[in-house]
Amino acid sequence: MKRAVVLLSGGIDSATTLYYALNKGYQVFCLTFDYGQRHKKEIYSAKALTRSAKCRWRLLKVELPWKGSALLDKRIKLPKGKKRRSNIPSTYVPGRNIIFLSYAVSYAETIGADAIFIGANQVDYSGYPDCRLSFIEAFTDAINRGTKAAQKGKRLKIEAPLINKTKKDIIKAALRLKVPLKYTWSCYKGLRKPCARCDACLIREEAFKRIGIQDPAYK
Amino acid sequence: MKRAVVLLSGGIDSATTLYYALNKGYQVFCLTFDYGQRHKKEIYSAKALTRSAKCRWRLLKVELPWKGSALLDKRIKLPKGKKRRSNIPSTYVPGRNIIFLSYAVSYAETIGADAIFIGANQVDYSGYPDCRLSFIEAFTDAINRGTKAAQKGKRLKIEAPLINKTKKDIIKAALRLKVPLKYTWSCYKGLRKPCARCDACLIREEAFKRIGIQDPAYK
Repeated sequence: MKRAVVLLSGGIDSATTLYYALNKGYQVFCLTFDYGQRHKKEIYSAKALTRSAKCRWRLLKVELPWKGSALLDKRIKLPKGKKRRSNIPSTYVPGRNIIFLSYAVSYAETIGADAIFIGANQVDYSGYPDCRLSFIEAFTDAINRGTKAAQKGKRLKIEAPLINKTKKDIIKAALRLKVPLKYTWSCYKGLRKPCARCDACLIREEAFKRIGIQDPAYK
Repeated sequence: MKRAVVLLSGGIDSATTLYYALNKGYQVFCLTFDYGQRHKKEIYSAKALTRSAKCRWRLLKVELPWKGSALLDKRIKLPKGKKRRSNIPSTYVPGRNIIFLSYAVSYAETIGADAIFIGANQVDYSGYPDCRLSFIEAFTDAINRGTKAAQKGKRLKIEAPLINKTKKDIIKAALRLKVPLKYTWSCYKGLRKPCARCDACLIREEAFKRIGIQDPAYK
């Protein structure tokens, strides 16, 4: 059975990506990061998702002590409003996906995995430079020069099945793949219920509205 | 004053790399990792080196829980003998430099640095795939597609000034740059004195012998 490492944050995108990997027949090893984000809600979501999917899960604590992002520093304001941004939002964490993917490479090499799955998306969050396809392709090229596995002729793939999907299409795919969306968490705030006001909540709400169904996590 | 992040392990190579950066006029921010290596000796060396060079220093604790390397797992034997290897040594840590460079990218972006310096070398340790120039060049290309700084037209360089140098040439460069070699640590074991038997000790010893001077750290 082929193995894959799935980067799982606990949101809709990574949950759907997990089910893409399962659907392709991979034995899945999920990796979630506790990197000092504003709240732990999404970590609990990630745990619930892996339990539901019966796959392995590793939670890694990583230090990103240099702050500078609204996701790491509560003094920085979260972006509001669902308008498509031309600028990079304040929630951008410098090099975050680069670091996460690097850990996934290390993990993949250790367990002999063939692929890494990441829920990166260049449509709804096009502001994040490390979510773009050109970055992922170049990174794949780099790691396939820098690992022992690659030296022995084993190429590691990075799969980003959602890269060009809108949020609406992602949710449609999630419904088709039977992703337990009730366990996912998107809100930037860590309150008991989603705030329904932040960027992440609004994009999610709009997508569900367009499909015409109720969001099972936002009842 | 231009800024640079220097990956500093505490060995001769990274210490010399630090002085290359200082010599080029950079304001230097050193980054050292506590990644569960067999001993803390090299961390103390890194600290002493930054104190001596009067530059900033950050020690980051990173988890690499999947073992599989002699550097992380005391049950795996260290390589012995100074013969040039054709295979990758047991001290190889999957994806280590990829992870370290990723943190450096994140740090560099946060502090607005122009360059990252790494003491990678493809001559004496040619067994490590993530120390090769082709990897570093491809990685540089990747990160310059995946950062906010790059999107704004600011390219980040990765400098590996020792990449094609023999250990003898590195030590000669260190002497020229007045690197306080007495603070460096190379031995894989964490005893009070270097073991003088492991790979790292033997390569170092031979290089000093060839130059014809005494190693100030190994008295």
